[in-house]
Amino acid sequence: MSDLHWRSATELAQRIRDGVVSSVDVVEACLARIRDADADVQAWTFLDPDYAIVQARAADDYRLSGQPVGALHGVPVGIKDIIDTADMPTENGSPLHAGRTPSRDAAVVARLRGAGAVIMGKTVTTEFATRHPGKTRNPHNPTHTPGGSSSGSAAAVAAGMVPLALGSQTGGSTIRPASYCGVYGLKPTHGLISRHGMWELSRTVDHVGLFARSLEDLALLMEELAGHDEGDPDTRPRARVPYRVVAAEEPPLPPMLGFMKTPLWDRVDADAKGAFAELTERLGDRVEEVELSVATAEAWRWHEAISGAEMALSLRREWETGRDGLSPELRARIERGRAVSAVEYLYARARVPELVAAFTELFEQRYDAILTPSAFGTAPVGLESTGDPAMCALWTLCGMPAVNVPLMQGANGLPLGVQLVGPRHGDARLLRTARWLVGSLSP
Amino acid sequence: MSDLHWRSATELAQRIRDGVVSSVDVVEACLARIRDADADVQAWTFLDPDYAIVQARAADDYRLSGQPVGALHGVPVGIKDIIDTADMPTENGSPLHAGRTPSRDAAVVARLRGAGAVIMGKTVTTEFATRHPGKTRNPHNPTHTPGGSSSGSAAAVAAGMVPLALGSQTGGSTIRPASYCGVYGLKPTHGLISRHGMWELSRTVDHVGLFARSLEDLALLMEELAGHDEGDPDTRPRARVPYRVVAAEEPPLPPMLGFMKTPLWDRVDADAKGAFAELTERLGDRVEEVELSVATAEAWRWHEAISGAEMALSLRREWETGRDGLSPELRARIERGRAVSAVEYLYARARVPELVAAFTELFEQRYDAILTPSAFGTAPVGLESTGDPAMCALWTLCGMPAVNVPLMQGANGLPLGVQLVGPRHGDARLLRTARWLVGSLSP
Repeated sequence: MSDLHWRSATELAQRIRDGVVSSVDVVEACLARIRDADADVQAWTFLDPDYAIVQARAADDYRLSGQPVGALHGVPVGIKDIIDTADMPTENGSPLHAGRTPSRDAAVVARLRGAGAVIMGKTVTTEFATRHPGKTRNPHNPTHTPGGSSSGSAAAVAAGMVPLALGSQTGGSTIRPASYCGVYGLKPTHGLISRHGMWELSRTVDHVGLFARSLEDLALLMEELAGHDEGDPDTRPRARVPYRVVAAEEPPLPPMLGFMKTPLWDRVDADAKGAFAELTERLGDRVEEVELSVATAEAWRWHEAISGAEMALSLRREWETGRDGLSPELRARIERGRAVSAVEYLYARARVPELVAAFTELFEQRYDAILTPSAFGTAPVGLESTGDPAMCALWTLCGMPAVNVPLMQGANGLPLGVQLVGPRHGDARLLRTARWLVGSLSP
Repeated sequence: MSDLHWRSATELAQRIRDGVVSSVDVVEACLARIRDADADVQAWTFLDPDYAIVQARAADDYRLSGQPVGALHGVPVGIKDIIDTADMPTENGSPLHAGRTPSRDAAVVARLRGAGAVIMGKTVTTEFATRHPGKTRNPHNPTHTPGGSSSGSAAAVAAGMVPLALGSQTGGSTIRPASYCGVYGLKPTHGLISRHGMWELSRTVDHVGLFARSLEDLALLMEELAGHDEGDPDTRPRARVPYRVVAAEEPPLPPMLGFMKTPLWDRVDADAKGAFAELTERLGDRVEEVELSVATAEAWRWHEAISGAEMALSLRREWETGRDGLSPELRARIERGRAVSAVEYLYARARVPELVAAFTELFEQRYDAILTPSAFGTAPVGLESTGDPAMCALWTLCGMPAVNVPLMQGANGLPLGVQLVGPRHGDARLLRTARWLVGSLSP
């Protein structure tokens, strides 16, 4: 059996471009893997194998016609089911949106198609990208959660079903499942990638998230997805960044990492604490422990006020007319969000630029990246919860780029991710620092 | 006695530039007028005549040195006392801020100084630019309000004390006093002029406002004040607009005006209703009555939710530590603002782009400007209220440019303004349309 489904997107795109393999070969390998593994993993909520093959065949025909091809030509990508697709349902993980068929692609899907990608299918999300789990299980052990809310995207990439997948992050919905499933995950700088056509939970803290099995593949995706879009008022026209080039470079100076335990350190598993002690030990003088300022400790409440209130607004219609179709967890969250006053909300919003300025100074003065756990430990056992996003909330609130690096393992053999966080718009260099980190720890 | 104080800023700047008069001549004429009239009008909260002369003398010396001069060189300008000045107090109309002396100029003041203007002094504002009146009286009849919150700026320009003054508008704080005092007032497109260093009442609906006795002078001010400023996150880099040239041009086609009575028409004085009937009659086929859509009628509530909540945030410190120093009216407003939920606030915010889109379509399809009263009538009698801003709130909410044209008089002989409203970023053409309107009604 072919092992094409385990190859990187970068390699597959190159081989398809060179005519060494066809997109149909690649998509068939991925479909075969899905047939083998998805009964256990349950990563997909919509998958039409024939239609995937139709797209792959069209990609192959197009290439054979001699026309220039895009950077992802013929490469299959999984799309979280809160991201609209014009040719597949998008049900936002809720029975209230069952049968929803958008008529337009989300901006990111349109960009992927423009780059030649095959839209493989829709991956499982938690309910409206919040906490109530979908059906997906951790590919490393089906009795454990894959994390969420981008459960299916993380699991599909981890299980070799697709080389790339898109998710989202409002709290910790990309970094946490990437950590639990042992893949790379990137939550880019807020406003770099358009969210137009993605279910809006919270404009202030919603991000598109990326999953891959290599840093190079994340850089490839960033080149295709970052950019201004009128449909997302938080994106801006900017100079193009050569993510792949920058991410592949050697850092001009050995990076310095700031290890932040954060006020949540007490909640980190003993096992994970030990792994981080060992990691920082190995990094020697390239890492220093940094304390967060006292004010920063309140950031978790600010994140909750902002995302809670904005979520309550987004789910206004569902709350008013379909409350019984919401999970009890989500109903409780909406109630909390509705109780947030405008003054509390605006106060929290006004603190964010101050937080960002403090971190910007820290990065400018001393650290290439902050090093911190991606989650409190490995994937918790059980499928009734997707784990706790708290280790991600501060960085999400600040809109700073964060990457999960699947560097370690827990005592239970499950993946344990390292989170690196960089300054806003330092995404390419963050990938470069992550690459340096991986290399410097290789035997 | 000189009549220089009644001349336009455009003319004065030209004569100073040509060496026909000096800035000292102009400033002395204005100071003489202030000595004569301000006992009745009470437009100023801070005025140091010697210091104004010092600035004028410096302007004259500078010009005599042969260096190139700015567009407002030597011209005195009044500054509302919520706009920071590095060399004069800025007390925001509240005893709680008495003795406040900012160390930096607001962005607009810095721009005025860069253009060579003499900062004449600080004009009276209502309490924190809200409703509780200051000491200013209407120059046309001191038993009537000048309107507010930019009371002193409107009155000073109307009384011939300065040719130009800056104010602000969050509800109707520029257009209403301009109407009551019989001067031109412009509330430009939201985000065109930086509010950095101006007391922030409500980021979403705060605007810098401009007062002058001619449209040409408003255009001159716009050229100096519009532009990107990092200190105001709602400004953006944009191509420079030649306001004076555009405002002076003949419209390529005769403008078409849309007369909007709005759902508030019942509250307009009978006298003003009659004046508008006559006006639209005279305009003949150049005006048509337009109904607002039903949804728009809610806009007044949205304006109240947004400005109320943001005001409560801005006045958080005063509320918490100096409540007794706030007027009962303002305390009641803050209480209402604090009761707004984040969901109500965000819902209102989310409606604004839809409103703007509907108006944009109306302008693109048919109307050069909307014609509507600036206020419910002439300045009300009494000084305990500054009148009602409701006729301005919708346009302020939409961030669309609005100009008061002092075209008419009430039966009581007091000024009665016509408000013209244009599409966002159509400020220069709105001034052109206003000029056409004035010309087409001249005998």
